[in-house]
Amino acid sequence: MLGDLIFRQLFDKGSSTYSYLLADSDSREGVIIDPVKEQVDRDVSLIRELDLTIRMAVNTHCHADHITGTRLLREKIGSLSMISTTSGAKADRYFDHGDVIRFGSHSLEVRATPGHTNGCSSLVLDNDVAVFTGDAVLIRGCGRTDFQEGDSRMLYKSVHEQIFTLPDSCLIFPAHDYKGRSYSTVGEEKKFNPRLSKSEEEFIGIMSQLNLSYPRMIDIAVPANLMCDYIGE
Amino acid sequence: MLGDLIFRQLFDKGSSTYSYLLADSDSREGVIIDPVKEQVDRDVSLIRELDLTIRMAVNTHCHADHITGTRLLREKIGSLSMISTTSGAKADRYFDHGDVIRFGSHSLEVRATPGHTNGCSSLVLDNDVAVFTGDAVLIRGCGRTDFQEGDSRMLYKSVHEQIFTLPDSCLIFPAHDYKGRSYSTVGEEKKFNPRLSKSEEEFIGIMSQLNLSYPRMIDIAVPANLMCDYIGE
Repeated sequence: MLGDLIFRQLFDKGSSTYSYLLADSDSREGVIIDPVKEQVDRDVSLIRELDLTIRMAVNTHCHADHITGTRLLREKIGSLSMISTTSGAKADRYFDHGDVIRFGSHSLEVRATPGHTNGCSSLVLDNDVAVFTGDAVLIRGCGRTDFQEGDSRMLYKSVHEQIFTLPDSCLIFPAHDYKGRSYSTVGEEKKFNPRLSKSEEEFIGIMSQLNLSYPRMIDIAVPANLMCDYIGE
Repeated sequence: MLGDLIFRQLFDKGSSTYSYLLADSDSREGVIIDPVKEQVDRDVSLIRELDLTIRMAVNTHCHADHITGTRLLREKIGSLSMISTTSGAKADRYFDHGDVIRFGSHSLEVRATPGHTNGCSSLVLDNDVAVFTGDAVLIRGCGRTDFQEGDSRMLYKSVHEQIFTLPDSCLIFPAHDYKGRSYSTVGEEKKFNPRLSKSEEEFIGIMSQLNLSYPRMIDIAVPANLMCDYIGE
């Protein structure tokens, strides 16, 4: 789909989470982004069928709505769990703004995009072809800022400085969509995102009035994910 | 995602149905494949934001699990409903094996792939880049053959003659996936499809022993879809 990259978008219906499997079609090396614990069997099956070596399982942030699959993946295929240093979570490997995660002839550039949580990172693929935004930018939406370390002003700055400065054609692959849309582009979100296309003050006002319910999974998912699900080890 | 084609895969969670929006990035003309009635507002919103002219709304077959969105789309954006002649369903336009549906510089070649229903059609994009298989080939599965005009032998022949003869690299976009996988390839399904990779007689045996439950929506969806939802007009 994206040149010679092996690329699969994978969906978890329970939490409406997107995971992404990316690999170099020659070397068969790859990474998985935001795997979900309940879907690890599906993911491992696909990884084996496609004959891929997945050494890195990357969390864009410490999720509040599902438990990461990175620990189970390490058990099953030996991939290392990764998350940003600023997340405060435990993992096998850490990354920071500016780091580059390489697999075969491809790369993911880490951009710190805090605001939904302190440790939120976006990952820019190759030459700005696509960006995996986690919960920073969602399609026509964004991650909420009313729990964990949520900070609307910081989220607005992150998105406008780190995501909206990418080319309009850059594809946006979010960590969730609740309406069955698969991806967007930077150009589209700059124009049509009903929150992030507004001024900073308008954005802060919108975010303060969302009145969202308490996340169903947060009291289970956050403690687990702060350990990348290595609880009790 | 696919060269200069505007392409969006869209999901209906209720029926696990994939719809596809395809358009030429220059002329902005396009088609929508297998729209779902409940998702028409989402689809129209995206079509308008992307500034597309969708003149054709194509049904790969007469679905038993959801009601087509093609009638509502005609009301809202003037697109014509299309389905194969062999479906026996009513629509604004009909197509047959070998027909070519053109939009801008792109095309969809119609291949008759009966077996799940008599009128099932697959649509091959441009130079065998991708195929929209409806319910003929699903990811690691296929459409059931135990209701409507289901015929396992016919389905096996259709898939092996019309789909598995495409290049291994050809992407398969099905009408459904129940495990959150977004697409497959011809090479993968030839190798890993637990039903269709088997011999014809094994396939017929497998299909006769699935013991599936009666489709929840069939008594509402099939009569509606046989009229492309133009009931009472």
